[in-house]
Amino acid sequence: MSPTTLAEHDRVGYASALEQARRGAAEGGVPIGSSLFEHGKLLGSGYNRRVQDGDPTAHGEIDALRNAGRRASYATTTLYSTLAPCALCSGAVIQFGIPRVVVGEDASFPGELELLRSRGVEVVVLDDPEATELMARFIAEEPTLWNEDIGVEET
Amino acid sequence: MSPTTLAEHDRVGYASALEQARRGAAEGGVPIGSSLFEHGKLLGSGYNRRVQDGDPTAHGEIDALRNAGRRASYATTTLYSTLAPCALCSGAVIQFGIPRVVVGEDASFPGELELLRSRGVEVVVLDDPEATELMARFIAEEPTLWNEDIGVEET
Repeated sequence: MSPTTLAEHDRVGYASALEQARRGAAEGGVPIGSSLFEHGKLLGSGYNRRVQDGDPTAHGEIDALRNAGRRASYATTTLYSTLAPCALCSGAVIQFGIPRVVVGEDASFPGELELLRSRGVEVVVLDDPEATELMARFIAEEPTLWNEDIGVEET
Repeated sequence: MSPTTLAEHDRVGYASALEQARRGAAEGGVPIGSSLFEHGKLLGSGYNRRVQDGDPTAHGEIDALRNAGRRASYATTTLYSTLAPCALCSGAVIQFGIPRVVVGEDASFPGELELLRSRGVEVVVLDDPEATELMARFIAEEPTLWNEDIGVEET
């Protein structure tokens, strides 16, 4: 699937996540953005803040979920993310019971999409060239920072 | 294993996590604490801050990892937690490459110990009566808050 063939509510949701990623990039951070929506309404959005806040847990999806605040249920929400969610963020999706995740791309990083699917989460991958380009530029310019973010030790 | 038969460095590490859980309980929060240690040195500790900060992602382990700050490697760390880590916190352990987790108890909540083990993480469960008692009291007094924290919808 590509961003251009999305239904309107998914187009809006994903555009919000991409805007967050661009904001992170503009601040010199890891350019991954995320937004939580329910029935077309934005509940919270955010982006990776490892550099900006020195917080290794502030991945884009975690920042979005934090900004959305406390909820008794996530059963009718969709989480949009520009990149395939890592184990931390996939764990959040599973723990919170988010039933659907729309992902910009999984070429730069495979994430834990199979873990999500094995727990019954619907995963849609968009193969979005804009998200891929944001990541490709960042990984080329900041390989050490990227390895830190994905937990890969440099030797 | 029980807390009384632990090696000294684990005794110190686990005592730190338990102290954090007690602090959370004293503030009226979800009484789960966690500490990250390396070679007997405290790197960061924290406790569940859902109530105090209105932050659903601030589980005890996440708060400890946040407070420990950025690191290039977790390869020689141990994470102590009073309760079996949920999917979110187990995801963090997997993503960050933390090789060892010492857990107070898994009777109040099973967590994702099998997922951790399947990814090569060493998991030690202490069956600590103090941690179990803290949780039992909290779950009896605040069932709705507990269900919110573990992503269980009340009907």
